[in-house]
Amino acid sequence: MKQTSAVWATVDGNEAVAKVAHALSEVIAIYPITPASPMGEFSDAYSAAGRKNLWGSVPEVVEMQSEAGAAGMLHGALQKGALATTFTASQGLLLMLPNMYKIAGELTPTVIHVAARTLATHALSIFGDHSDVMSARMTGWTMLAADSVQQAHDFALIAHAAALRTRLPVLHFFDGFRTSHEVDKIQLLNDDDLRALIRDEDVLAHRMRGLSPDRPVLRGSAQNPDVFFQAREAANTFYEAVPAAVQTLMDELAARTGRAYQLAEYTGAPDAEKVIIIMGSGAGAALETVEELVHRGEKVGVINLHLYRPFPVEQLVAAIPASAKRVMVMDRTKEPGGRDPLYLDVVSALTEQGRTGLEVFAARYGLSSKEFTPKLVKAVFDELAKPAPRRQVTVGIHDDVTHTSVTADAEFTIPTRAVQAVFFGLGSDGTVGANKASIKIIGEHTDLYAQGYFVYDSRKAGSTTISHLRFGPDPIRSTYLIEQADFVAVHQFGLLQRMKVIDIARPGATVLFNSPYPAEQIFSRLPIEAQQQIIDKKLHCYAIDAHRIAREVGLGARINTVMQPCFFKLANIIPVDEAIEALKGSIKKLYSKRGQSVVDMNYRAVDSALAALVEVPVPDSVAGESSSLASALAMPAGTPDFIAQFTARVIAGEGDLLPVSAMPIDGTFPTGTARYDARALAQDLPIWDPSICTDCGKCALVCPHAAIRIKVYDPSELDSAPEGFQSKEYKGREYKGQRLTVQVSPDQCTGCGVCVEMCPATSKTDPSHKSINMLPAIEYR
Amino acid sequence: MKQTSAVWATVDGNEAVAKVAHALSEVIAIYPITPASPMGEFSDAYSAAGRKNLWGSVPEVVEMQSEAGAAGMLHGALQKGALATTFTASQGLLLMLPNMYKIAGELTPTVIHVAARTLATHALSIFGDHSDVMSARMTGWTMLAADSVQQAHDFALIAHAAALRTRLPVLHFFDGFRTSHEVDKIQLLNDDDLRALIRDEDVLAHRMRGLSPDRPVLRGSAQNPDVFFQAREAANTFYEAVPAAVQTLMDELAARTGRAYQLAEYTGAPDAEKVIIIMGSGAGAALETVEELVHRGEKVGVINLHLYRPFPVEQLVAAIPASAKRVMVMDRTKEPGGRDPLYLDVVSALTEQGRTGLEVFAARYGLSSKEFTPKLVKAVFDELAKPAPRRQVTVGIHDDVTHTSVTADAEFTIPTRAVQAVFFGLGSDGTVGANKASIKIIGEHTDLYAQGYFVYDSRKAGSTTISHLRFGPDPIRSTYLIEQADFVAVHQFGLLQRMKVIDIARPGATVLFNSPYPAEQIFSRLPIEAQQQIIDKKLHCYAIDAHRIAREVGLGARINTVMQPCFFKLANIIPVDEAIEALKGSIKKLYSKRGQSVVDMNYRAVDSALAALVEVPVPDSVAGESSSLASALAMPAGTPDFIAQFTARVIAGEGDLLPVSAMPIDGTFPTGTARYDARALAQDLPIWDPSICTDCGKCALVCPHAAIRIKVYDPSELDSAPEGFQSKEYKGREYKGQRLTVQVSPDQCTGCGVCVEMCPATSKTDPSHKSINMLPAIEYR
Repeated sequence: MKQTSAVWATVDGNEAVAKVAHALSEVIAIYPITPASPMGEFSDAYSAAGRKNLWGSVPEVVEMQSEAGAAGMLHGALQKGALATTFTASQGLLLMLPNMYKIAGELTPTVIHVAARTLATHALSIFGDHSDVMSARMTGWTMLAADSVQQAHDFALIAHAAALRTRLPVLHFFDGFRTSHEVDKIQLLNDDDLRALIRDEDVLAHRMRGLSPDRPVLRGSAQNPDVFFQAREAANTFYEAVPAAVQTLMDELAARTGRAYQLAEYTGAPDAEKVIIIMGSGAGAALETVEELVHRGEKVGVINLHLYRPFPVEQLVAAIPASAKRVMVMDRTKEPGGRDPLYLDVVSALTEQGRTGLEVFAARYGLSSKEFTPKLVKAVFDELAKPAPRRQVTVGIHDDVTHTSVTADAEFTIPTRAVQAVFFGLGSDGTVGANKASIKIIGEHTDLYAQGYFVYDSRKAGSTTISHLRFGPDPIRSTYLIEQADFVAVHQFGLLQRMKVIDIARPGATVLFNSPYPAEQIFSRLPIEAQQQIIDKKLHCYAIDAHRIAREVGLGARINTVMQPCFFKLANIIPVDEAIEALKGSIKKLYSKRGQSVVDMNYRAVDSALAALVEVPVPDSVAGESSSLASALAMPAGTPDFIAQFTARVIAGEGDLLPVSAMPIDGTFPTGTARYDARALAQDLPIWDPSICTDCGKCALVCPHAAIRIKVYDPSELDSAPEGFQSKEYKGREYKGQRLTVQVSPDQCTGCGVCVEMCPATSKTDPSHKSINMLPAIEYR
Repeated sequence: MKQTSAVWATVDGNEAVAKVAHALSEVIAIYPITPASPMGEFSDAYSAAGRKNLWGSVPEVVEMQSEAGAAGMLHGALQKGALATTFTASQGLLLMLPNMYKIAGELTPTVIHVAARTLATHALSIFGDHSDVMSARMTGWTMLAADSVQQAHDFALIAHAAALRTRLPVLHFFDGFRTSHEVDKIQLLNDDDLRALIRDEDVLAHRMRGLSPDRPVLRGSAQNPDVFFQAREAANTFYEAVPAAVQTLMDELAARTGRAYQLAEYTGAPDAEKVIIIMGSGAGAALETVEELVHRGEKVGVINLHLYRPFPVEQLVAAIPASAKRVMVMDRTKEPGGRDPLYLDVVSALTEQGRTGLEVFAARYGLSSKEFTPKLVKAVFDELAKPAPRRQVTVGIHDDVTHTSVTADAEFTIPTRAVQAVFFGLGSDGTVGANKASIKIIGEHTDLYAQGYFVYDSRKAGSTTISHLRFGPDPIRSTYLIEQADFVAVHQFGLLQRMKVIDIARPGATVLFNSPYPAEQIFSRLPIEAQQQIIDKKLHCYAIDAHRIAREVGLGARINTVMQPCFFKLANIIPVDEAIEALKGSIKKLYSKRGQSVVDMNYRAVDSALAALVEVPVPDSVAGESSSLASALAMPAGTPDFIAQFTARVIAGEGDLLPVSAMPIDGTFPTGTARYDARALAQDLPIWDPSICTDCGKCALVCPHAAIRIKVYDPSELDSAPEGFQSKEYKGREYKGQRLTVQVSPDQCTGCGVCVEMCPATSKTDPSHKSINMLPAIEYR
């Protein structure tokens, strides 16, 4: 339901939460940890800009030395009667546990917002699952699970309000990356909404409980066996009151916004026989799937659980249709040696509510942001349809060792009215930022819903980024990557030699290449596999030499404002003229503080783009002499088995296909494998000019990929050097008469240019010319 | 079963564990936390004395800056291939969690020995329950629960051996205080036992997995959504193998020692209908009770669960007799907002093993070392016998708010052949040390089993200590305080004015008073309630003026070697001559490094004691004019309600009787309540000599109870001073002509003497005489 008076914004989950948390706090203790860091950064920026909270004061944002310090500061601020909050994830949450037990035991209202992330076990992972929040389930905190950006925004308010009303602290969580970093068009809560749910008397009561010399009390003492146990039971009534209090707040929110939530929300057939129970972003995929399956006549349903602690036994069991025969409980964590936590809670709840006729099964899914798609949700229902479902299954992997996995239904898809666009870029090339801007433009200029999700390969600068954008007339609940894109943009031509980029295009889709080659050469320069797919799927191909234009207008390697107009033109979601105007508005807003000349450069990039956009002719058959992606990805002869069967496939982007048996059991890997990851992705390569080199060696020192090597050697070595091999006399006295050479490995270089930044040797006649200079790779590779 | 070849020792749980852990480790990372500290201290002392481990090297014991550091050091040592261990409890374990997840994920064999302790919530508590270990149940560690000192010793070996055999780390836990600090006579494992279970090939395999530049590997990397989930499942088979491996080790141990353990040990009627499931020291009380009830013909049983993770689903369910109709799961932790953990595991296990006909109920007991006695075990079975038992009960408290508690069966007792002796002393008076020595003497000189448990009131020096000693021909499994003592010793006469000391004496018991009064005065100086009990129960009373003897032989306030011979004489467990000889042997061992004069002083104390022991005449009726304990404990008029109804009862030792409704809900208390805790317990009081005082004020500064106050005032104030009020001229120039007085509050003073230690003003003629001197309180109070 869209309210005409509502204010819409395109934000990610972290920003959606930070807006509310900042408005409802006086003290914000922070320590950064992926993927929760932006919540602290937004809060810090808000306060630095003087933004006030609901009571007219600017919250104090303090970064501590660790999450343990942040939790201690939170506890201290609360004990003084301040409204305080913090943000964290993963190991950061573990460091807060000692204070969390105390904060709950002292019945102190506060909120920790958690962008739920994997705990490090056999390996660290920055991605999302519930292993962190589940490690906090015994602390006595209320736990609220949001499944989307809009919900994270709304539940941030519910969380702060519930804490104040119930005197119990709230851990509000949402999935790291899938929700924290997904950009969605959402309806914003306004100050009146906040004021309506946050009651003055609760705030005042909290303040009056604060420690003060004016009304001294003792808190945080030691107790002995004589009284501790009784005192621990004295808080029972506070826990008993939480489910009703949270539902009341949800109802109050619904009355104001039309967005209605339940503690345990059932969606599906009224006579469902098979029901999934799930928390967090996976609910999006599950909801879509259930609705499609019900549409097809299946008796299935899903419970989207929002309140996890106190566990809403009655509400959850009541939400399961009486017709249900089998339940699959979806846990996004693994607790080896025991059953996973949500499963245990559900089995216990059903038992004590007397629903013993139901069979309950356990599914583990989504560890470390493993994809959870409608094909997999369908597979879960398929498992439940078997004569004897397995007690414990895994979803989203192929377990060929302990044989727990379900098989995805490859044929199953969900119809959508959304336009789906995928962009392949490189870290730091501006693709992600441009896509975020595009979502904002479309979100603000249309009634369409919009979603953006950005996949990074965690090699930071120079790594691949894949942007998944959806635009459509219906709310978007597809909490998984795009599988069939209407529009595919390849912002770096080199990626075609390394990834199955064209796989994702649906038949008849449009493909845009950023290519240094003329249009008529492009097709034949594609790997033969891509050529075949373009022909088979009847794809419409376009190209632009964005790097040339960016260089020409003075933007260097930042190609975003060249590619964006092309997207608007080809995707045709809004009239291209309107889009161009909006884009220029966005450019002005973004860059005007860097000066009019930067704004003008970007304007020129936009204006030049559409003129340079050309259609790529597609022949009827593949070009015979073309290279193949398979051979490009092949490892050299003699590559060790493990590298060929594991590392190479991960590099090729096929890690998802690797079965359990391919994995090291304990996170142990061979060393020296970077040599197999020669990505040849630099658009520009550092070229050495020996004539002005000072032998300082800084270029080799700073290269983050060790792609620049420097060597001093005897001149006789040059006798067998290939033609064109460059060298110079070594200046140092310790090796008088020796030669020096600086060499670049073009396949290891990512073109980041830090070597150029650090080079102190400049030409006397042209101070912009250094001993190391970036030149187009195409001329040298 | 006693093996004739076995070596017996009387040790507490911490020492029993440290002996094994030290012998099986190369690196021991420690950080002290009650009640686990002694394990680290023993290890440190062993290594300092050059004691070698099983492989002939002296383990390196390193104290870190916190438990987080200890866990990091553990992780690091293990990664190098060393055999490493640590010890902790409570919040210390929380700080280890991040490393624990990693150690388990990397399949690394190690052991953390935990003296399980309460986590701080509304209040800190140093006492025992399972809230700490339960917070680690998701880390992927194997978890072993020992229920006694002997088991903690045996399971320490099982834990180290299981870790090496299964490649999974083991958290070995036993109850803080009840097991860690209980002194028991146990059979020691010898090096051959250790060698038999620790296989060389497992140790070698662990070493070979250690990181080394000679065989470099990469471990502890980051993984992305593509492979993390599969890798997490790759360890499944390791977990599946644990239960069988642990049972095999238990069987190997049984073959060598005769001490047989099962993962889930059933004791009780073969046709039991009501079964309790429990872990840890509570099993002792439960076993005794079940055996007595079965003896009386009841169909009851108990499962003593030793392996908690991986949860032994099959073994546990198989151990429950087919006849069982109702199960009570005993959790020694509270996880507010959800059901407690063992209950959840059992419900799930029964469900998946198809034992759905069983009704399962949850009981919470023993938080923060709350007593768990046969009367309460009986109450649990009574609850199960009701037509409709409650889903969740609490055991050991009176919950008059949420009405969860069961009612103890006051009549239920278990016959015992053991002699039970209780000693009331003051911290630092030597009572506890003397009792430990007595246990050793009796343990070593007889075939009797022996147990000692020591209750401190956590006010450290000057606080009450109550020692509970049992000696008997049967193994002692009474894991609770003595309720009916055969022998009661009151080592401090003043305690009779503050506690219901005589309550604990069984009819016909022997009572020994340390009394400054002559025998014929003693009875009339007892509170009237004690007099009545002595008459009613026909108690045999004896007395000695131990403080006088101790002073006379030069031992000051240390009365232990005076009281001990009296205990041996009166308790008559071993012939008194033999006891005296053993006692002198023990004195020689303990004190000879302090010089022969100290040994001789103690010898003299022993020799003087029996001669000074006199019988106390007991009249037929109470002495009319006697004081009453009730009035001694009464608060002055005008005492605030909360103090009267809570604080005063805690001070009187009646905290256990306080119901839930009497408790602050959030750990908040009024301040300034120390004034109501005037204990009047000092045997000696500091007396001020104004003639040599230098006005330095150090005595007032260092007094830990603020019992010494110093004041400078105008001489005119003395006009209305009472007779004998002492003062002196103030020397400082700032208040020329003023008077100074140092005053002592005799009821607040504990007689610790630190004021005397710090006083710099001594008499010129007698350098042992200071301005502040300790003199017998009886002359001044």
